[in-house]
Amino acid sequence: MPRNEVPDIVVARLPIYLRVLNHLLAEGRQITSSQELGDRLGISSAQIRKDLSHFGEFGKQGTGYNVAYLRDQLRRILHVDREWRMALIGVGDLGQALLHYQRFDEHGFHIVAVFDNDPAKIGTVIAGHRVHGMDELADVVREQGIEIGILAVPPTAAREVAARLIALGVKSLLNYAPITLTVPPDVRVQYVDPVAQLQHMTYYRGAEHDATLATVSARNVIHN
Amino acid sequence: MPRNEVPDIVVARLPIYLRVLNHLLAEGRQITSSQELGDRLGISSAQIRKDLSHFGEFGKQGTGYNVAYLRDQLRRILHVDREWRMALIGVGDLGQALLHYQRFDEHGFHIVAVFDNDPAKIGTVIAGHRVHGMDELADVVREQGIEIGILAVPPTAAREVAARLIALGVKSLLNYAPITLTVPPDVRVQYVDPVAQLQHMTYYRGAEHDATLATVSARNVIHN
Repeated sequence: MPRNEVPDIVVARLPIYLRVLNHLLAEGRQITSSQELGDRLGISSAQIRKDLSHFGEFGKQGTGYNVAYLRDQLRRILHVDREWRMALIGVGDLGQALLHYQRFDEHGFHIVAVFDNDPAKIGTVIAGHRVHGMDELADVVREQGIEIGILAVPPTAAREVAARLIALGVKSLLNYAPITLTVPPDVRVQYVDPVAQLQHMTYYRGAEHDATLATVSARNVIHN
Repeated sequence: MPRNEVPDIVVARLPIYLRVLNHLLAEGRQITSSQELGDRLGISSAQIRKDLSHFGEFGKQGTGYNVAYLRDQLRRILHVDREWRMALIGVGDLGQALLHYQRFDEHGFHIVAVFDNDPAKIGTVIAGHRVHGMDELADVVREQGIEIGILAVPPTAAREVAARLIALGVKSLLNYAPITLTVPPDVRVQYVDPVAQLQHMTYYRGAEHDATLATVSARNVIHN
């Protein structure tokens, strides 16, 4: 099956499978099953078998999966069996926190160039990175072979910065700016917006909150 | 239509609609259309009309939506027309960055209690918050009326901390620990894992990277 026929929602689950397999390996486990993976992830074992079947045969009915082999195959499929070079744009509070986020390096995603447009920051060294001005963007992106951009700029600047990176051939953007980007079809954007995630959860909470208040009122009426 | 019949994928888009409406209001706009919203978000206008139709009639064919009214309705539907009180568990690098993340407060999500299990941190004040020990969790969560927990603890601690919060009645968890939590059906978890998001994108990148290398090799063969 050609890669482009795999539904994106299936692709989104592969990093989660990879994470569990890494945990299992760290626990010294050699064999697992779709049942065990499903239990750990709150996903049905049938779903896991179906997801993995897009990419080949990784286990046998009754014998399960070899953890190390399946882990290696997922790393190959996700192209994380190599290192990736990233540029961080914006070193405010958020950008500086991302420079200290060790999980990027641990997983082969390396911030190798840092940019800001604040003259007070340009030329200084933050968390071991010299801060470049935005006028150096084209040269540094080319010299450093940047393939991924992390946008940690204010929303008002995000569109322009994204357009400049895309024009330089950067096709993967991790966007922390709370704004939706319109990009060409060959460019991928992933959004990190914890406020939107909180609002997603509170949708489900308000009704019962109201119900609790109603119950309290009703109880008060009864008891007073 | 009862609230629970709205597909979760539709609910996930409501905060994004709300964000765009806030941008439009800030630009002084009074009327918008599903076409304009769709253009800004890269979603079809039909999808937007269909999503909103789950909650009532917000606009008329040909006249569009009143921006302020639709914004207010979405705030009500998402239950963000009130304030929410959150506890942050874990004040390592990530937790400290979250304490400085101003968008939480700007959107009515307030970190009002902070916990850690490190004796060197307990009792100190970080970003204006006194750090509580984990033995104070039950008392503080009750006293402060905490409804949302933010997990910024190591993956090895996340399950236990989540279980304790859930036992105290906290039903919404924003989980930064790279681990999947198994929770009761009335509890919601949202995961923030930028590494998984990067791996999701590199899935689509590797093939063309390989293709580029293949082209380079082929060229080398021809030219050497």
